[in-house]
Parts: sequence; C-alpha cells; structure tokens
Amino acid sequence: MTAVRRWHAELAWLGGGGFGGDAGGLAHDVLVEASGERFTAVTAGIAADGVPPGTERLSGLTLPGLANAHSHAFHRALRGQAAGSTFWAWRERMYDVASRLTPDSYYALARAVYAEMALAGVTCVGEFHYLHHDGGGRPYSDPNEMGRLLVSAARDAGVRITLLDTCYLAAGFAPGGSALPLSGAQLRFGDGSAASWASRMAEFGCDALGMAAPHARLGAAIHSVRAVPPGQMGEVMAWSRAHGAPVHAHLSEQPRENSECQAAFGGTPAEVLDGAGVLGPRTSLVHATHVSPPDVARLGAAQSTVCACPLTEADLADGVGPFGDLAAAGCPVALGSDGHSVVDLLEEARWLELGQRLVSRRRGHFAPSSLMGFLTAGGHACLGWPEAGEIVPGAYADLVTVPLDSPRLAGADPDPGAGADPLGVLVAAGTAADVRHVVASGADVVRDGRHLLVDDVPHALAASIDAVLG
Amino acid sequence: MTAVRRWHAELAWLGGGGFGGDAGGLAHDVLVEASGERFTAVTAGIAADGVPPGTERLSGLTLPGLANAHSHAFHRALRGQAAGSTFWAWRERMYDVASRLTPDSYYALARAVYAEMALAGVTCVGEFHYLHHDGGGRPYSDPNEMGRLLVSAARDAGVRITLLDTCYLAAGFAPGGSALPLSGAQLRFGDGSAASWASRMAEFGCDALGMAAPHARLGAAIHSVRAVPPGQMGEVMAWSRAHGAPVHAHLSEQPRENSECQAAFGGTPAEVLDGAGVLGPRTSLVHATHVSPPDVARLGAAQSTVCACPLTEADLADGVGPFGDLAAAGCPVALGSDGHSVVDLLEEARWLELGQRLVSRRRGHFAPSSLMGFLTAGGHACLGWPEAGEIVPGAYADLVTVPLDSPRLAGADPDPGAGADPLGVLVAAGTAADVRHVVASGADVVRDGRHLLVDDVPHALAASIDAVLG
Repeated sequence: MTAVRRWHAELAWLGGGGFGGDAGGLAHDVLVEASGERFTAVTAGIAADGVPPGTERLSGLTLPGLANAHSHAFHRALRGQAAGSTFWAWRERMYDVASRLTPDSYYALARAVYAEMALAGVTCVGEFHYLHHDGGGRPYSDPNEMGRLLVSAARDAGVRITLLDTCYLAAGFAPGGSALPLSGAQLRFGDGSAASWASRMAEFGCDALGMAAPHARLGAAIHSVRAVPPGQMGEVMAWSRAHGAPVHAHLSEQPRENSECQAAFGGTPAEVLDGAGVLGPRTSLVHATHVSPPDVARLGAAQSTVCACPLTEADLADGVGPFGDLAAAGCPVALGSDGHSVVDLLEEARWLELGQRLVSRRRGHFAPSSLMGFLTAGGHACLGWPEAGEIVPGAYADLVTVPLDSPRLAGADPDPGAGADPLGVLVAAGTAADVRHVVASGADVVRDGRHLLVDDVPHALAASIDAVLG
Repeated sequence: MTAVRRWHAELAWLGGGGFGGDAGGLAHDVLVEASGERFTAVTAGIAADGVPPGTERLSGLTLPGLANAHSHAFHRALRGQAAGSTFWAWRERMYDVASRLTPDSYYALARAVYAEMALAGVTCVGEFHYLHHDGGGRPYSDPNEMGRLLVSAARDAGVRITLLDTCYLAAGFAPGGSALPLSGAQLRFGDGSAASWASRMAEFGCDALGMAAPHARLGAAIHSVRAVPPGQMGEVMAWSRAHGAPVHAHLSEQPRENSECQAAFGGTPAEVLDGAGVLGPRTSLVHATHVSPPDVARLGAAQSTVCACPLTEADLADGVGPFGDLAAAGCPVALGSDGHSVVDLLEEARWLELGQRLVSRRRGHFAPSSLMGFLTAGGHACLGWPEAGEIVPGAYADLVTVPLDSPRLAGADPDPGAGADPLGVLVAAGTAADVRHVVASGADVVRDGRHLLVDDVPHALAASIDAVLG
C-alpha cells in the first residue's frame, strides 16, 4: 500500500506557476498531501484546526525541492586547495584527484557529497559524469560500474539523480581541426568513439524514457567542443532523441576554448554545436561565460537551457556570463554547484544576480521568484524531471523548509506590506545552513538539519576525502 | 579582582604575525590565558592533560576576533527589499528608512544588528554614523544622543565599537564647486559646518586617545567628497590628529561621484582628499571601486587602508574595485558588511578574492591567511584598535571558534599534507553559520551558536525592523 502523507506549511512558495498551471507564489497555511512519491493535493488557507490527524506542521517557509543541475561530485575533494593561478593549472590538480579514484572511494565520496547537497535542500542532482574507466582507460568488468555507483550514491543519500553520462573523446583541438588523443588521467574518460559510448549506454539499462531506477534517469553529455569532434556529436544526439533524454555540454567557459575552436573550425563553440545539431530545448549549456551576442541569440532561439554555476565560475576565474541577456533571448536558466568549492544553491542564486550587477552596474536583473524558479522547476526540467520543482498535485513530493527565524532571514515579512518579501530576504542572505527539513520523492531525508540516511555527513565527507587524497 | 581565564584550543590561527611579532599561523593545542580583557599568555603544543583545572576546551579552529570595519546598522532593515535599479534609487529607499528612526527604535535595531554580527564572529564594529539629529535636523537635547545609543547598543550586544562620527554637510556638488544644501532625510545628517561637527565631538566626551568607554572609541568620518567641501575637511583631520583617532571616508563608490567631482574640482575624489590633507596611515577609504591607477599609487603611498565591502558593492551594482592593485601598492586592507544585505564576514572575504578573479580572469590574488588577516588585525587596526586581531599576549582577548566538522568545512586537514589547508576551506566555504563560540574582550558573547546577552537575536531583529518599517 502506498504511503499517504500530509504536511501543513505555515508559509509556502508553491513555485513559479509553470508546469502546474496555477499562479504559484506565496501562500499561507498550505495543506500538502502526497501518495508515495507524488503530491496529490495542495490547498492553501487551511487553519491548523482543520487539518487531518497525523499532519506534520512545517514552520517557516517551505519551498519545492532544489535541483543542482551541474555537479562533478569528486571535485569536492579540491575544496580549499590553492591549485594554481589559472583554470588550466587547476585542471591539472583536478586530474590528479581524478586519477586517484577507485569505485569504492568514489562511491563513498559521492554519497557524502550528495548528502551534503541534501542538507542544502537539493532533491535532485545532475551528475556530469566522465570518469568511466580504470586508470589505464580499460573498462571495468561492468563498463558502467562508475555510473552505477553514482546512481547508488544518490539513492543512499536520498536524492534523485540524472546521470549525465558524458562522451569524452579528445584531449583538445589539434592543428587542422583533428582531435588530440587522450592521455594521462584523461584515459579514464574516453570511450574511443561516440558509437562505443552509445554501446555502453545501451548496456546501462534504462526504460524507453531513460529511467534507470525510480530515483534515477539517464541523460547524455557532450563534454565540450574540446573533447568531442563535431562529427561524433550526432550519435549522442540520436541516443538522446530515442530516449527523450536531456543532453548537457560545457560551453565557452574560458576564452581559450573559443579561440582554439575558432582556429580549428572557423566558428564559435555555440556555432559548432548548432551545426552539429546539438542545440534545442532538450539541451543545456553549462557556463556560457564567453558567448557572443549572436551566440546568445542562437541559444535563445533554440530554447536551450543555460546552466550557470556562479561560485565555480568565480572560483576558476572564468568571468561572468551574460545570463540576463540569455534569459531575455529565451533560454530557461538553471543553477549548479559544479566544482563544489561551496555547496550552497542559495549562494549560487544570490551570485547569479550579483554577478550581473557587477558587470552591468545596474540592480534587479532577476526577481527573487525568478531565481527560485531557476533553482527548482528550471533545474529539474533541464535534468529531465519536468514534473518536479513545484508544489502542485502530480509533482514529485519534494519539500524544503527554511525557518524565517534565523539571524540571516529575520525581518522577512510573510504578509505583503512595508517589509521585505521572504523570497527577497532568502536570496539576499539565505544559505545552505538555513535548510531545516527536506523531503524528496515523498520521503524524509533531512529533519531538523540532520541527514536521516547518512549518519554523520561531515565525517563521511572528511573520511572519503582523506581516502582519496591519502 | 580581575578575572583570569584559560582556553585550550584544538587548533588555532594565531594571526598574521603582524603586531605580535611572532610567526603567527596555525598551531595545535594552544593554551590561551587572559586577565580581564587582554591575553596574558599563548602557548602552543600543550597536551590536554597539561592544562590547569578550569581550562575550557575549544574544539575545531579558533581565530582572533573579526572586525567589521564598515557598518551602517540601520541598513539592515532594507535586507531583501527590491529598492530600484540603481544605487541612487536605492539611496532614496534608504533615506526613507533613515527618516523613520527614533532614538528608541534605532537603539533596538542597532543592538540586534550588532548581536547578529557577534553571532557571525565579529568582536569589533566600525559604525559609520551620520544620523545625528531629529527629523527636522534639530539636535536632540543631548546632541550626541544617537551616537551614544550606538555605543550602548554595541556594549549590550557584547562587541567593541569605533563610532566613526561622520561629518556630512552637503547634498552634493553644485555648479561651480559650491555645496548643495541638505534637504529631506539628509537634514538629520548635517552639523552645518565642520566646526560645529567638532564642537559636537568635543561634547561627546572621550579621553585623549579617543576612548569613550572601555569598549568604545570615537573616530571621525568624512562622508565623501560629495558631502564635505574640501575646505571643511581640515577641521575633521585636526580632531583626528589631536586624538590619534582613525578617519574614514567613502571613496569613488560610483562613477557618478567621480564625474561630478571632476566637474566640480578638476580632480578625482582621491586627489581632492589628498589635496585636503585627508590621506595618511590613520585614514581608511571605503569602497575605492572606481579609482584610477594614479589614485591607486596615491593611496598606496599614503599607506591608507582600503575597506572593501564586496557584498554591498555587488548589491548596489557598484562594481569590483582594484583591491589587488591597492594592496600591492601598499594599502592595508579591511572588510565591512556595510549595508548588511548579508552579515557574513567570511562570505565578504571569499568574495574579495572571487571578485578579483572575475575581473582579472586569474586565481590566487590573496592567500587565505591574508584574507583572514584583513578580517582580523587589518580591520581592528583601521578602527583604532591596533592591539586586537591576533592571539598574542597583550592583545584584546577575542576568540572565534569554528568547528571543522560542519558539512561546509569537512575535509579541512589540520595537519600539513596532501589535504586542504583549514584557512583555505574556511574562506572557500565557511559562513557566519559556522561560528560556534565568540569571546570578546575576555567575555563570552556567543556559546554554542547562542548569543548570551541578547536572548533571541532573530526575534530582536524582526521586532526592531518591524518597529521601523511599520
């Protein structure tokens, strides 16, 4: 028998009113009912004495679950390390960590990192996964062992996952537009060809919709124009079309990618992706830091999602992408914590807006409700979970509760008036530390700031990082 | 009899080794002793069974107290409000809040905000105070009533304060370089002339060193070149010289200040301040966002401190100042939370570095220990507390303890080796929520995340903001 649960939220932001079709927005005294992993009824304005017995009260502000649309779980081991003065120097350090991972150590690290995400209100993660093979580039006896353990890690941390299984074939552009062969740590990433990648994907095992488990769907990724020759991209897109599955790609994170792409192919990375048929509404471009105005128009016309990772883009000295222009051009927006120098989606949302202010010298690019929409429905949609990220009947039963009585959020006024809008205060000053309760797919994952499945998340992080770094 | 206290820190960062003269840095098992408000002995490497009875164990990482070098306490009421698309539109909303404050409501708000700071690890605040008079610009019966209540608010919240009592005379530049008269909310700010400002300062009551109370020193501020005609600045500097007291001034926060200053005086704001004798090692310039290379050299040569407020400079769309260049030119650096859109000095330090990365496209401008030095000794020095901000004998007995076992800081490796430096992790991912214990001037202020003097800080914030915004 499917479990029926009820919550009574003091104040809830129901979502942006996108797929649910209603007005969304803030509502008081909301009775939320779920059967199994989906909401069945959402009713605002129910007094406390009018709720059924056994209903759980959620004090403070309750939000839909947050989606972390771009993750490289193992980068968490690099948090706080100096790692050089350029992106490319940092990448060498990152490769060193990548070369150390075993299936066991990677499972432990990923489970801890996904648990850290859950504590921060994340109910679904998009794992951009390219660490497929052993240190010599040889497939494990199950060639999808690494991907499967990420799926297990997410399950064991209580979050849904889209495994964005990544096609990674080349070390970069060689003169004349040919592909540089992989070497060193990169050998672990490579499948040799997109056809081999697709064969491995076929072995993974998922249904016609790409679902690999109730909490996991399979998606595709093209690492970047650096790593996948244009002629190989069609195979990835064919797999995506066959499964209605999302495709993600890094795009123009650093100027060097642009200049090398221009030299190799005579076009921008966005033009190359477009020419290879990669753009479209099922496609998400990660970073898009250094895209030109014509690129912006191209991405907008394709209705491709742009996934911003503001903390990582600052950490790696990428720069600030034209996210306001991209949104205005028609791109849906999502957010990711990417390299996990910090895992805090509220800080990501804050700095999406603040980064735009720094470069434009104007305030107010994204309304707080827009930023929250990017973190919830926007992120879920681009990960292939269109029925998640709002508190409406039929949606995945994800709830994230932040009390409004922390020092950071105090002063938020739940009633329209002279005071500050709760969502405004949340994006101005909220942090992962403000997340008190998390329900994902109808199940309690975090209660009173404590993860219910991973006993001691900081210990799990420290131990798993120590096991990797030695 | 003066109280003697002892703590035993599992791991401590003793400071940058500046005024204390030793090497500073990280140390294990540090026995710290204080008599009254000052440290008397600091000894590393003392085993737990070797400490005197009654010694308190501090688990995790213990830091010197943080200084918040630039605060406008009442701006906290604006957190999360939209307030327009430009700095100047935001200023109108800020003036509206300023016009609503009474001595009673301001005391309550300031006490709550300083308590929020204490919870974030702040042991000393620099309050840039210009709300001197009643709504019509008439002095209160005690013309220093508003300043005194800020001093009381800091005492009652357990933090030291430098009241940077601000000279504010003009609404801006008028054609021909004359001063626009104050009007509206600004009437509360004005003393009419620097001589009247100095008379009011004389009435405040402080000793020859500017100490107004054991926890409070008086300092001076020149609001900006917009608000104080150059001919009036000498009087403020004379007061500062007579008391050896710090002088702070806003500098080039917005391009419009620069262009108007150039039109009025034929020079940059830094040139105007220099010409009026304002620059020097006791002077701090706040923001310095839009300073030219010659300005940078000028400020560096003067050894003036630059006080960065990265969160506010982002919130108000000011831009990113050349803080790396300023530090290289010789400016000490401090940090402030200014408009308090968020009160989190660790996030300020993180974004001081990340802002430089975004504009320079390079990583590694400030080492984590430098950033921590800005937050501790750097901030205290520019507020006129040179004997604070390090854990050394003779310094103010301030201790801030952050456990390293939060999800954010987990993975920090206290021992030199392959792992991440604790300070590196702290500036990468630490937040105000990580602060567990705070000792200021030898007294416990925060214990286990709970403020010991202000019973319920979030309630105090919400009630005092509600009283102001009505």
